[in-house]
Amino acid sequence: MRNRVIVMAAVCALWGAGARAQLPPDAIRRHADDQVPRALELFREYLALPNDANNIEDLTHLIGWLEAQFAARGFETRQLETERLPLILAERSAPGATRTALVYLQADGQPVDPGRWDQPDPYEAVLKRRTDDGGWETLPWSRLEGDRHPEWRIFARSASDSKAPNIQFLAAIDALDAAGVTPDVNLKVIVDPEEEMALAHLPRDVVRYRDLLAADMLVIFDGPPHVSNRPTLVFGARGIATFRLTTYGPRVPQHSGHYGNYLPNPGVRLARILASLKDDAGRVTIPGFYDGITIDDETRAVLARVPDDEAAILDAMGVAEPDGVAPTLQEAIQYPSLNVRGLASGWVGDQVRTIIPGTATAEVDVRLVKESDPERLIRSIREHIEGLGYRVLDRAPTDEERRTHPRLATFESDISYGAFRTAFDSEPGRWLAAGMTHLFGQMPILIRTHGGSVPIAPFVSTLGVPAVLVPSVNPDNNQHSPNENIRLGNFEEGIAIILAVLAQPLAP
Amino acid sequence: MRNRVIVMAAVCALWGAGARAQLPPDAIRRHADDQVPRALELFREYLALPNDANNIEDLTHLIGWLEAQFAARGFETRQLETERLPLILAERSAPGATRTALVYLQADGQPVDPGRWDQPDPYEAVLKRRTDDGGWETLPWSRLEGDRHPEWRIFARSASDSKAPNIQFLAAIDALDAAGVTPDVNLKVIVDPEEEMALAHLPRDVVRYRDLLAADMLVIFDGPPHVSNRPTLVFGARGIATFRLTTYGPRVPQHSGHYGNYLPNPGVRLARILASLKDDAGRVTIPGFYDGITIDDETRAVLARVPDDEAAILDAMGVAEPDGVAPTLQEAIQYPSLNVRGLASGWVGDQVRTIIPGTATAEVDVRLVKESDPERLIRSIREHIEGLGYRVLDRAPTDEERRTHPRLATFESDISYGAFRTAFDSEPGRWLAAGMTHLFGQMPILIRTHGGSVPIAPFVSTLGVPAVLVPSVNPDNNQHSPNENIRLGNFEEGIAIILAVLAQPLAP
Repeated sequence: MRNRVIVMAAVCALWGAGARAQLPPDAIRRHADDQVPRALELFREYLALPNDANNIEDLTHLIGWLEAQFAARGFETRQLETERLPLILAERSAPGATRTALVYLQADGQPVDPGRWDQPDPYEAVLKRRTDDGGWETLPWSRLEGDRHPEWRIFARSASDSKAPNIQFLAAIDALDAAGVTPDVNLKVIVDPEEEMALAHLPRDVVRYRDLLAADMLVIFDGPPHVSNRPTLVFGARGIATFRLTTYGPRVPQHSGHYGNYLPNPGVRLARILASLKDDAGRVTIPGFYDGITIDDETRAVLARVPDDEAAILDAMGVAEPDGVAPTLQEAIQYPSLNVRGLASGWVGDQVRTIIPGTATAEVDVRLVKESDPERLIRSIREHIEGLGYRVLDRAPTDEERRTHPRLATFESDISYGAFRTAFDSEPGRWLAAGMTHLFGQMPILIRTHGGSVPIAPFVSTLGVPAVLVPSVNPDNNQHSPNENIRLGNFEEGIAIILAVLAQPLAP
Repeated sequence: MRNRVIVMAAVCALWGAGARAQLPPDAIRRHADDQVPRALELFREYLALPNDANNIEDLTHLIGWLEAQFAARGFETRQLETERLPLILAERSAPGATRTALVYLQADGQPVDPGRWDQPDPYEAVLKRRTDDGGWETLPWSRLEGDRHPEWRIFARSASDSKAPNIQFLAAIDALDAAGVTPDVNLKVIVDPEEEMALAHLPRDVVRYRDLLAADMLVIFDGPPHVSNRPTLVFGARGIATFRLTTYGPRVPQHSGHYGNYLPNPGVRLARILASLKDDAGRVTIPGFYDGITIDDETRAVLARVPDDEAAILDAMGVAEPDGVAPTLQEAIQYPSLNVRGLASGWVGDQVRTIIPGTATAEVDVRLVKESDPERLIRSIREHIEGLGYRVLDRAPTDEERRTHPRLATFESDISYGAFRTAFDSEPGRWLAAGMTHLFGQMPILIRTHGGSVPIAPFVSTLGVPAVLVPSVNPDNNQHSPNENIRLGNFEEGIAIILAVLAQPLAP
């Protein structure tokens, strides 16, 4: 594999001397930098638009705003209706281009819990810099008009996931136009306003609109680069399925004194089920969960080239030892995961009361890899719970079921989408690697499978296109959590990266 | 044992022909009934006083109100200072009495979660009756002035636990005075405004005030009778200890895609610990947890006389099978319990997000029996968790501990008070059984150990007094939960029960 990487780097270098004159790296940087002030203002305006995909009204407004941005840049736009919110399709042809790149952008964000943020409104962007004692100091937004520092950060929901890539892409288009470069590919941009919802209708939408979406490759501007914050390309991502598991005690909470030791406790039952799903090292114990996955020596070598500083990662996370699924982080991500993302039963903290709760609930997400059959994995978990003696339902039990089944559980699952994985030497792989190598003077980090999920598998399988992700935000962005942010240096460099790849000549 | 019960019933009957003229049962009922209208108005006023013991100001106001009620009935009152809220001591001597009964009443209530109640304000009492379809219909309070129906209910926080017994006691004193009966015992009433807090200072308070509290017996008016709602005396109660167990994942929540399969999940860890505490039948697996408890044949016979309809209990609870700690409910309560009263980690329901949570927390209560050494039980649980490889702390881990210990847990425990158990043929046991047998024409149900906890053990051990509970509220009162209530028939009969025992001559 090492040989193949060397060959690939050589190919990239040769491509730099392609059919048409190529913007030199310093010109790319200059053109990108020129766009930064306007991009920051646009970013601030965009961040102010709430984008919790649970709120259809907010998202509808945001979709209109974004569509106008594409239209203003010469894209032909239209909305593709789905069962819920429409997708935006924005197209711009490149004269003479024979290839088409489908670009995927995400518009919605995770819900917010404003009380847990260190700013009044997660949708009102705040500029901050680190203080000497490791805290954060707020700066007036107007400071961005002077000498900007790459370590400053902009805090807001979706700052990194995924409004920055949207604005970086628009700014790169402006830079491309300012530089007078016609790309070698026609652009078809698809904007997904429901990525965080992990909804089931996207696969059907891709099938429905397969002719409109037809392309030669798929490029996704989303997610952080490698944790070292060095330029990265991502050739695959895990898919995601979720389930909510509920166990039952008495019909309504009961006094724990009167009935403790007698009525079954739903929290203990839930704990016993969850404990049975994983071993002490964090490996899933369901038979067949990891079936079909082999990490051969060649693959292991590619994974080993990723410059993970696992000691630093663990230190930053405050964790002394990782789970024992695989010997390294990169290798662990090649396997499906099972993560308890939420637990609730009764009351805790100052609300605590001495009851046997009526129910206990676990929210679980299962990250899928290319080898995972989502239906089979979810079915095997459900069957495992049945094997523990539970009557497993899709809904709350009836009175009759309560009377007749000593162990009841509700299992509500949702398979959002599978994983995808693209070959390193595919056409977009070679093109994007060449563009980044041209800008940075060295190969980017190549990630075989990204741990997070982007709903790309339906595009890959239905449209038959190879797909690659181009990350452009800092890894430590508190994505999905309070105090999400983007590092200013990443915001700026992301524009240069996208400009570099769009300006990169395609091999003949 | 059966013989002993028969002998005891005979003794009770003989006592009916004691030293002074005894009020006949119908006179007891008439005098009690006369007090009901006034008691209901007083009850409504009392229910309107918020009594969440977390709120010192509210409780201080309530203590003043209650002290005035005792003073108005000829009790000498004083407040006994403690580390937090004062206890009320209210004393009334009976001319010629040679014995003193210490009466324990509880004034505070569990917190409320108003959104889960079917009425606007849990502290504003609402009168309701059942509709034909099993729901509840609100009646104007003024309906209590006409023909009251015993199946009507008054809904409010602390309606049953434990404001009704307070008001029933005051009404019984009024009835006693109206009937012109001088009891055979001096009365020392102690009112505890922090029962639900399960605080650690009560044992020290009892030691501090042991001279003031000195008595020959302790009578507790609290809790429901047997679930059949038949007259009951309770000769013991379980004690209570609690602990909060927290496990740790990353320092702040992390994206479950980026790090799922790598960073330890605190919910899975908590589940594995909790699952290890109990077997599949609900029995605690910690060695020694049940040590010292033997249920001999005589005891088993007493337990068997309690007319539990376990099929009906399970049906009402919506549970097909109880846990397997012991073959019967009565026997199960003779053992300490371990109940997971709350679980929390990350987010669930419509707040769910795809993260590895930073922490997972379980709230647990441990009900203690007379044979339980509380310190030893709690220590054995902590040691068991250490035995699973955890570094167990009393507080959140430091950065250094996070770096050096792969498994961290915080274990915050509180031993509130132990259990007590009084012999059936003790002086108060015989006196109270005689009073109730006189009123009802048959022996009450005798409960060896009540499952719930009342902070009686410190009185029993420090003052050296035998203690018996006299219940006076309906068992299905939603105690500690939303929509707590008292059945009107129980409110009324409770006054008669307390009057009957206070008017009962003491054996010479």
